[in-house]
Amino acid sequence: MTDLTPNIPEVVAEVTALFERYEQALIDKNVEVLDATFWNSPYTIRLANAEHGYGFDRIHAHREARLPGPGTKEKRLRLDVLTLGRDIATVTLVYKVRGRDMTGRQTQTWVRFADVGWKVIAAHVSMIAEQPVL
Amino acid sequence: MTDLTPNIPEVVAEVTALFERYEQALIDKNVEVLDATFWNSPYTIRLANAEHGYGFDRIHAHREARLPGPGTKEKRLRLDVLTLGRDIATVTLVYKVRGRDMTGRQTQTWVRFADVGWKVIAAHVSMIAEQPVL
Repeated sequence: MTDLTPNIPEVVAEVTALFERYEQALIDKNVEVLDATFWNSPYTIRLANAEHGYGFDRIHAHREARLPGPGTKEKRLRLDVLTLGRDIATVTLVYKVRGRDMTGRQTQTWVRFADVGWKVIAAHVSMIAEQPVL
Repeated sequence: MTDLTPNIPEVVAEVTALFERYEQALIDKNVEVLDATFWNSPYTIRLANAEHGYGFDRIHAHREARLPGPGTKEKRLRLDVLTLGRDIATVTLVYKVRGRDMTGRQTQTWVRFADVGWKVIAAHVSMIAEQPVL
């Protein structure tokens, strides 16, 4: 059975650093880092604000099509990193959407593979009418 | 290192059955099954169409407040179950939203715990303007 100890500090630090690297890569449109963040597999799914990315190739195409810049993220409201053992993590960011009375939500499932290390296997980004964050 | 073999048939069948049980419990407002589906932990997060559920207790409160019935799910468009090894899974359902030109998206991260079995540790439900599903 997999070790599922929650939030081992060095594992949280590892995943948090990768998440921050990914966020910076979105701003910079660093396609190499964006691609390196997601699992290169037809099974990877990224559902975003205006697109459904089924499989790594389609996700990559969305990266190429994306404009650089901070996008809709105006201000972070809450960031949660949960790790279970040394191979499983989820990241949940809730943020104020730029110029709209809406709250953005970004969730990622990360898994650490023996050969390629930590990768996002599933991601979901959405917006709803402004919500309290607790 | 955790075994991450994708989509071992009996593991996919196991998680799919639990997902279908959860979907039926939403329709029936079977709070016992809804509660049993999610990890009973302050770390569990469920972001839904009109609410942010941080921690099991808040998620449970949303269950109690929910009306029974099929909700906004009019018709399934695509269901993907990905399992990695015997302890990690993601479920992604994309559906037509009832009575609106919108597409619903539901994603779940499942982990199998030694003591309590498969549980959802993170979930995210959202709607966007109607999108092609590929």
